[in-house]
This record gives sequence, C-alpha cells and structure tokens, in this order.
Amino acid sequence: MKLKRNTSKTAQEDLKDLGFGSRVSNQSAERLLNKDGSFNVQRSGLSFFTSLSPYHSLLTMSWWKFNFNIVLFFLSINALFALAFVGIGKECLPGAASGGILEFFFDAFFFSVQTFTTVGYGFLSPQGALANSVAAMCAFVGLLSFALATGLMFARFSRPTAKIIFAENAIITPFQDASALMFRIANARKNQLIELQIKMLYSRLEQSDGKHVRRYYPLNLVRDKVVFFPLHWTVVHKIDENSPLFGVTRKQLQQEIAEFPILLTGIDETFSQPVHARSSYRFDEIKWNVKYSDMFFVNKYNQFSSDIQKLSDIETV
Amino acid sequence: MKLKRNTSKTAQEDLKDLGFGSRVSNQSAERLLNKDGSFNVQRSGLSFFTSLSPYHSLLTMSWWKFNFNIVLFFLSINALFALAFVGIGKECLPGAASGGILEFFFDAFFFSVQTFTTVGYGFLSPQGALANSVAAMCAFVGLLSFALATGLMFARFSRPTAKIIFAENAIITPFQDASALMFRIANARKNQLIELQIKMLYSRLEQSDGKHVRRYYPLNLVRDKVVFFPLHWTVVHKIDENSPLFGVTRKQLQQEIAEFPILLTGIDETFSQPVHARSSYRFDEIKWNVKYSDMFFVNKYNQFSSDIQKLSDIETV
Amino acid sequence: MKLKRNTSKTAQEDLKDLGFGSRVSNQSAERLLNKDGSFNVQRSGLSFFTSLSPYHSLLTMSWWKFNFNIVLFFLSINALFALAFVGIGKECLPGAASGGILEFFFDAFFFSVQTFTTVGYGFLSPQGALANSVAAMCAFVGLLSFALATGLMFARFSRPTAKIIFAENAIITPFQDASALMFRIANARKNQLIELQIKMLYSRLEQSDGKHVRRYYPLNLVRDKVVFFPLHWTVVHKIDENSPLFGVTRKQLQQEIAEFPILLTGIDETFSQPVHARSSYRFDEIKWNVKYSDMFFVNKYNQFSSDIQKLSDIETV
Amino acid sequence: MKLKRNTSKTAQEDLKDLGFGSRVSNQSAERLLNKDGSFNVQRSGLSFFTSLSPYHSLLTMSWWKFNFNIVLFFLSINALFALAFVGIGKECLPGAASGGILEFFFDAFFFSVQTFTTVGYGFLSPQGALANSVAAMCAFVGLLSFALATGLMFARFSRPTAKIIFAENAIITPFQDASALMFRIANARKNQLIELQIKMLYSRLEQSDGKHVRRYYPLNLVRDKVVFFPLHWTVVHKIDENSPLFGVTRKQLQQEIAEFPILLTGIDETFSQPVHARSSYRFDEIKWNVKYSDMFFVNKYNQFSSDIQKLSDIETV
Repeated sequence: MKLKRNTSKTAQEDLKDLGFGSRVSNQSAERLLNKDGSFNVQRSGLSFFTSLSPYHSLLTMSWWKFNFNIVLFFLSINALFALAFVGIGKECLPGAASGGILEFFFDAFFFSVQTFTTVGYGFLSPQGALANSVAAMCAFVGLLSFALATGLMFARFSRPTAKIIFAENAIITPFQDASALMFRIANARKNQLIELQIKMLYSRLEQSDGKHVRRYYPLNLVRDKVVFFPLHWTVVHKIDENSPLFGVTRKQLQQEIAEFPILLTGIDETFSQPVHARSSYRFDEIKWNVKYSDMFFVNKYNQFSSDIQKLSDIETV
Repeated sequence: MKLKRNTSKTAQEDLKDLGFGSRVSNQSAERLLNKDGSFNVQRSGLSFFTSLSPYHSLLTMSWWKFNFNIVLFFLSINALFALAFVGIGKECLPGAASGGILEFFFDAFFFSVQTFTTVGYGFLSPQGALANSVAAMCAFVGLLSFALATGLMFARFSRPTAKIIFAENAIITPFQDASALMFRIANARKNQLIELQIKMLYSRLEQSDGKHVRRYYPLNLVRDKVVFFPLHWTVVHKIDENSPLFGVTRKQLQQEIAEFPILLTGIDETFSQPVHARSSYRFDEIKWNVKYSDMFFVNKYNQFSSDIQKLSDIETV
Repeated sequence: MKLKRNTSKTAQEDLKDLGFGSRVSNQSAERLLNKDGSFNVQRSGLSFFTSLSPYHSLLTMSWWKFNFNIVLFFLSINALFALAFVGIGKECLPGAASGGILEFFFDAFFFSVQTFTTVGYGFLSPQGALANSVAAMCAFVGLLSFALATGLMFARFSRPTAKIIFAENAIITPFQDASALMFRIANARKNQLIELQIKMLYSRLEQSDGKHVRRYYPLNLVRDKVVFFPLHWTVVHKIDENSPLFGVTRKQLQQEIAEFPILLTGIDETFSQPVHARSSYRFDEIKWNVKYSDMFFVNKYNQFSSDIQKLSDIETV
Repeated sequence: MKLKRNTSKTAQEDLKDLGFGSRVSNQSAERLLNKDGSFNVQRSGLSFFTSLSPYHSLLTMSWWKFNFNIVLFFLSINALFALAFVGIGKECLPGAASGGILEFFFDAFFFSVQTFTTVGYGFLSPQGALANSVAAMCAFVGLLSFALATGLMFARFSRPTAKIIFAENAIITPFQDASALMFRIANARKNQLIELQIKMLYSRLEQSDGKHVRRYYPLNLVRDKVVFFPLHWTVVHKIDENSPLFGVTRKQLQQEIAEFPILLTGIDETFSQPVHARSSYRFDEIKWNVKYSDMFFVNKYNQFSSDIQKLSDIETV
C-alpha cells in the first residue's frame, strides 16, 4: 500500500505525532482519544496537591456536583463554628436554648449560619472576647467564601465550551467517482459557533523493525473550514489515490486497530472566545456502504431547518 | 453572464457556502441573514433543557427583560419561603402580626426578604429547629442568588458586542469609469473599534440541473480593512468586468432573489476583544443611481467630525 | 521630492488612510492623534443615551472619579429612601428620634443605610406593609448595586491597558551613513509586555488639484518587533533614499503640518491579553541634531538596569 | 568558528536581541533569564506609586501572602473604626462594656466588625449622628472591600498561567549521526495545554572591537510544535554543521558564559487562553554524554502513562 500526503509540509508536521509519541506496547489496543475528547493517557507522579487540583476540579465538575460541594462546605463549616461555640460554653450565647448540649449545639449552629451569611438577627449575639472573636472570624470567612463562590460561578459560566454532537458512526460510502469517509456534526447549544476548522487523522499500528509503532496520517477534507455553522455539517474525506485510506479494506482497519482522531476549533460568538472540541472514531464505529438520512426541512416560517435528532440516522444506499 | 472571481482561492473557498448548504425549496424566498445579523434558520430537535438554555438567554436578553426576571425571581422565591413559614405555623416567628393568615403571610414574606437579603433586623427571628433551618436555607439561597446575579451582570457587561449601524439602503452608483455597489457603516457606541475587516457576498438563486440552487460569490472591495474607525466608513465594491455583478440589471437581482450578506470583524479597544457583526442587504434594499449625503464637517474645536444621523441619507446624483 | 515605499503592498494599504479620510478643511491645523493616543475627532448625532454611555464611562474614568461617583450614588439613593420613609410618616419606624422632621429624616437616612448595606442592626425596623415594602426594595437595590459595583470594579481591573511612556520629543540625528528619526519608549508599569510591534506613519498636507489633502506614508523601521521589552526601546527610522522623509527639511515639515502617528501593539503577560497604545509626534515635537542620553547602567546586583526617568533626556551631538 | 543560521530571516530577526540590547559590562556574568522565567534586569526611576503597583502585586503574589494581606487589612481597618468610636465616646454605643477604655475599644472593635461584615446583630447599635455616620461609612467601606476582594480573587483565578516543569539539566548527547542538545518538559497542572510552540536561543559573549558583546543565535529544533501535550516532551536541537553549536566544546561554553533561553507558548484549554512560559539553561546546567531515563510506562488500565517524577533523571550513555 502506498501512502501519499498532499497537504502542505508544515501542517503535516504539526500532526505527525500529536504529542503521544509512537511507542506502543504490544498488548495495548486502547483508544488514544475517548469519545468525549479527553486523552486516554495518564500523567503520574504529580504531587498530591497538584493531583488534587481543587480549582481545576471546581471549574470542570458538573453543576450538580459543584452545588453539592458548596452545600456540604456550608454545612460543615457552620458545624465547625458551632463546635467552637460549644467549646467556649453556653454563657457565650445568652438567650440560647436552656436544654442539653445537643440543643445548644443546634442553637450555636443556627447562630453560626446567621453570622456566616451576615444575616445577624440579633436574637442571639456573642458575649465575651472569645465568642466575639469566633463570630468575627465566622463572618469574615463567610463573606470570603461567598466571594469565592461568586468568582467560581462566574469562572464556570465564562468558560468557553463548545458542545458539539458527533454522529454515532462515521460512514464509508460511494462519493463522486470514488468513495469517501464521512461524519456529521451539529452544535448542541443555542449559541452560534463561527469560523469552524476541522482536522481529521488516520492513526494505525504499523510494523517497524519488528516492533509495533503507531503512525499518524492527516486526511484531506473536501471542506475543512466553514465561516458559519448555523445548522449541521457533513465532513467529507474523499478516498482517492492520494488518500492514505486508498484501497484499505474493512479487515485491514481492524487489524491495524485504526482510529480517526478529530480536532475542531471555532469561535463562540457569545463571548468571541476560541473553543476546541475533539472526538475520535475507531474502526468498529465506521459503517460501510450506508448514507446519512436527510436532516434538512423547511419549517412553517419558510426557514431552512435542520432536525438535530436525526444526526446519527443512517440508511442503506 | 460570465462570473469571474479574482480573489485568492483560499479566501473564496471559505465563503463558498457559508455553512448554509445550497439546497433551496422552490417556495422559499426568505432571506438568509436578518438585518440584525441573526441567521434566518432553525435547529430543531434539541433537548428541552438545551432549547431552554437559561444561561445563554440570561446573557443575551435585553437589560429590561433581565432586570424584570431578577425582580420576578426575587418576589417568587420570597413568596415560596413565606409559604414555608406559614406551613410551619405562626409560633415559628414570635412577634409577627396577630391577625389572620394573610397578615401572617405578609409578615413572613417581609421576614423572608430580610433573611434573603441578609439584612436581618431581628424584630422577627425564627424559633425552633424547623423555622431556623428554613431561614438558614433562605439566607444561603439568597447569598448564592446574589452571587449568581453578580456573575451574570459582569458576564453581560464584559460580552464583546459591537453595535455597528448600517445605512438603511445600499446603493449602486457611478464610480470612477464604471459603477459600484456601496454601503455606509458607523460605530453606534462610544468605544473605539480598531482593525476592522469586512467581507461582502453576492448570494443568488441559480438553475442547476433544473433545480433551484443558492450560490455565493465573494465581492472584491476597494478597501476591505481599516486600522482605525473613528468616524464612518463607506464600503465600495467596484462593478467592473471582474465583478460577478457586471452587467446585472435591477430586474435580474429581483428574479434571482439576490441577497448581499456582510460580515464584519474588528477589535473592541476597551477590552481588546474581537467583535463580530453581520447584516445583509436584499435586492429591494438597494437604491440605484443615488449617492450618500456628505456626513463630514469641521466642528467648532476644528476637529474632523461626522454626523451619524445622516448615515442613511441619500441624494439623487 | 520623490516618495518611494518599499514595504509590502498589503501592510501599506492598511495604513493608507487610517480611517480618517483624506478630506481637510483649509483652516484645520489640528493634530489627528492626541499625545495620549485618543483621536482628535468627533462623532456627533449619536442618541442621547449612547452619548451618555454610562458603562463605557464608568469603565474608563479615573479611579478618583469612579469612587466619587459611587459615594455620590450611595448618598443620593439613601437620601431618596429616607424621603420615602418621611413620606410614609414617623410611625413607620418605631424608636426613631422624637424630634422634628429633620431629626426623623436623619434617622430614616441611617436606617436606609443600614438596610441598603444589609447591616440591619434592628434598633430601628420597619412597621406596616408600606414601610416593609420600601425597606425590602432598599435591601434589594442595595445588594444589586453592590453586585454591580463588584462587576464594574473587576471589569476595570481586568481591562488590558498598557501604560507606555513616550519620550517627550522625537529626534532627527545622524545615523550610520545617513540620518534617522528616532523616539524612545518604556513600560511605565511593573507588568511585562511581550511581542511588541510598532508602526510609524508620516502624515502631511499635500496639494492635490488645488485642494489640501492629508496623505499618509508608512515609515520603515530598523526594528519593528521585539520579543521582550524588559527595559526600554529606541525605535529608529533610517532616512535613506527609500524614506519619504529623504531630503525633507525642518521648514518643510512645518509647512506641511507634518505629524507622525505611532501605533503599538503587544501582549500584557499578566493576563496574556493584547494591548494597544498610540501616540503621535508633531513637527514641533521633533528635535534636530541631538541624541538621547544613555539610560543603561549596571546595578549593585550586577543586573542590567535602565533609568526610566532619563527617557526624555537629550544631549547635543 | 562559523555561524550559519538556516531558519527564515523574519523569525531570526525577531529573536536577534530579545529586547535586552547587546551591551555588557565586563564584570557582569549574571544570567539574563532566571530559572523561573523572570528577567534578571531592573527598571529604575519609576514613580513611587508605580513601583508600589498594588494591583499587579496583589494579582501575582502567592495565595498565602494574599490571604495574609486580606486578614491584615481586615484587622487594621476595623481597629481604625474602633478608634473612631473610642474618639466619639462611650455614649455612642449604648450597651457596650462598662469597664475601662480598653474594654470599650474591644467592644467597639467587635461592633465595627459586625458592621463591616454587615452582620449587624443589633446588640450594639450606634447612637447619634456622628456614630451613625461612622457606622454607615464602615458598612460602605466593608461592602466595597469585599467587592474588591471578590474581584481580585476572580482575577487571580482566571489568570492564564502555565506551570511547566523543566528538567533540572539540559543534556548534550549523541543523536543520529551527530550529537544534540536536549531538554525535557512536562505540564505540572491537571489542565491540558494544546498547540505548544517552543523557541530556544544560544546566547554568548563575543569580542567585538575589543568590547564584550552578548549575541543571540536561534537554535533549530527537530520539532518546535506539538498539537497536544498530554504527557511530556523532549525538545531536541541537532548539532550538525548548520548549528551555531557545531564544534563548540564544554570549555568554550564556559568561557563565553553561554546561556540558552527558552520561550514557550501554548493554549490553556480550560479557558482557551494563551499562556507563556520561559526558562533558561546556563553552561553549568548542561550535562554531557548522558541520556534522560525512560518515563513511559503502560498502567493497569492499559493507558499510555508518563511518570513525571522521573523528568530530571539522567543515565550515562
């Protein structure tokens, strides 16, 4: 099989090893890029604090998890301050429940909440230098915590994230006088993405000096840029004699554990921010001799429309 | 009619189909780009939550609507908390009005407001674990809501948005030894836009194999970049023999439902952020054989000045 | 006089009219760019709200003015709420001063402040639905105002602004086998600017068909980029036979009201943000046959150092 | 020794003097770039306020120092307000401790804290116009301070900072048919860096007209860009006949006080922000005829992995 590459040298070189290196263990048939675009690799040996990485985690975790963490922190820190007041003794909060230690803990807890949130009804108020100091610290920590939460919330909001849906399967199908490898994408958000660029690679295991080596070949796309992306986009690599896929069979793709990483960049118009998306198709996620179903229709307002739910629908040719 | 394009291949290709596709239904004579630059298309089939898209909506709605939503949320959530206190019973807020259930609801509502905003006068304060828990939740939700509102407000502020005014009509007018398609723009904000770039297209219906197809032709501009944009700018496409508009008559433009999408990018100097603006002129928004009125004058401080209100003014040649 | 330009066509074209247009009134000898880089032009006819432009003003005014405006707003809005309480009547704030209307106004004012800032001591608290509603509104407006102030403060902080000091005078001085137009710049902030690029123009009045026209000629610089800018930078345009300044005398510069606009871009490393700076030298801000004093020295830690205070110092050759 | 440079003229010129100038004092053998990437230079003569530069300092200081400053400010300003209340006199805070001046100061201090943080229990509340004014100012300053702290915290969070670890020593080692200068880097954060570019220079003292001059030579890298950076990267400059290092001995490097500044740019994917990192190797930080230890392994999930702790490990060839 002959491999030619006809894009410019510079672009090619950039994509040559993607930063993964070409080393492969014999038994490793794992994919390089997960479907969600994350790398299927591990960096070990980072310090405990780095691997904890609270800020990065707080930014990238889901909203449910984020809110849960905030509530947990709120309850724990107020419980801690309540314990401090319990430690100082009942007389530090005149007017608190006259019952047992548990009743006082709950009163102290609610007093702490009132201080932490700076409500400060005043039904309870601290007596003595120690209690006053703890209450001052509680209010101070409270305000800074909410400042932090504000900052984190905004940071989460303003993160440039594209949510591109990729069709479940790529297809190899007759195209013009040859065949083509195609996949479809759509924007799953209401925001507009503009100036999209897409790159697709063909990664496969090869024999080199008796060792398994993973090599990367960029695939030329019929169209690798669009100015706007209002509906959906079918990305096409024509398999002609210049393509590294020319003559490759279904079975060969399986033997070489072929993978097709996809890199997408664009600009989110809401904030004029660059966004990146990645995904990859493996040999077993490619359907042969089918075509994608039509997604276009004209709605009742006479507008061009695109039914995103049909993105992954395929039909036999 | 002969169509030549003399700009570079690369730039041309980028603009070839704009991501709309070339499919046209026979009856659709709708424009592609609305005057305000939004796309006249629809993406259907997105999930309910996505089509709700609260964050994107809160960022892009008008300030009136945004403030109205905030006030509405404030009133509703405090009404909810008031209902919770009503549910717990009158004894949970000692000192509240001794009248009927409605009076107590109002007292509970104002108490909730005092807690939600963390004012906490203390005239009323919660009694019992349940009432205290509800009050704690109210203060917590209140603070986070204001944190969210702060974040949203800043996000709205910091969004890079250019407000470019386009003259109401484009004109086709004698120019040098030929004629030209022109339109005028001005910056409607006080901020400075720099490094402006502009692209203009000629989109029209064509017959292809008996089907209607929409094709796009980039138009060369006499000047497609300016470093500064302190006053206004008249953008000019010269209709010479290299222009796809060469020899096209008014009637032809109407028959082919011609549309001239315009894409503008620049940098907002206040935040050094890239900004994008779009608009489009349809065949019926083009005046023939008129010229734009002069907007320049020298003001009393001897400064070059530009009267923005004259932007759309035209005169017969 | 012969004018040649030997930089690339594209770059030249970008700078051809700077977006000012070439129209000049006979009497106007005003500069185009003020020393601080703002444009000496006016856009009139913008709507009242646009010309008010509160957000842009609040972002770009000085910190003194910004803080003054905040204090003024704080005092006025609380005075307004105090007036509302006065309107409702004394009985709405039990415990307020028993004196005259002025005493009550002051009590109402301080109560309003306590509510607006959400301190809410509770010594005074509102009685009745009307007073409670006004107090609720006061707390709500207060919180949103501080949210707004927070957002504005951060927006002011995060604005990418370079503070470049330009030497007071440019100089024309012997250089290699010819002469050169030079000026010196330094970074007046502690942050690092990197990847600086600089452009310099020669703008002058010319006769064209009996009318005064202002034309712009880019000047080639011996060095128009630096990767780092840790100390200072002397920017040099060599006046050889390719320079539009070749053979131009001091008197000619005066007659043609010559001006040398300077455009500088770079990246502020603190936030990796692009920054822009502008200035301009007029014919009367150019010294002939002098040189800049040496600013380099080696400090006691053996570090290269640069004495910024000498930036404008010149010596006779 | 012959020095050839075979990269493009433009890129070369950019790196020619790095903005340091080529002036060298005889005694100065100090490095240009510190290991942490900061410049080993000084800009003196800036105004007191500029050299104080509170905002830049608050943004770039460590989190420990930042938090310490916030606590210090909080304590000092409340002590100031407490002094103001002490100045007004005991009667301004009815209910305060009846003891001596010190007891009253502490009560006033805690009252100030309660006002500053807007807790406002109401156990103490100000009496009289003067005390009320001071309390109002305290609440106002308090809220703005926390607004500022919020803004600063978010600004610190959202700063684009790469934490690249550079191997302790660069190495010169046999490579293909010649030798090579190499160093290894890894990303010490959990975030992904993409589109990394790297530049390396060879800076050395030369004799020119009997004076010491520092010259800069860019070094061609076998690979100066990677699209992804999931694991680590060994950067290689091949010392062939085109290299300015061709034939240079260990001793020569020492005599010419050779230094190898390294400039790295990339994009932090979390915020799609450009990031910069710098470092430099001196002649005495280069090991000859060793190689880096292998960092790759395959973990139990069959993923490619990289042990970051081995980054600086070297072995004899």
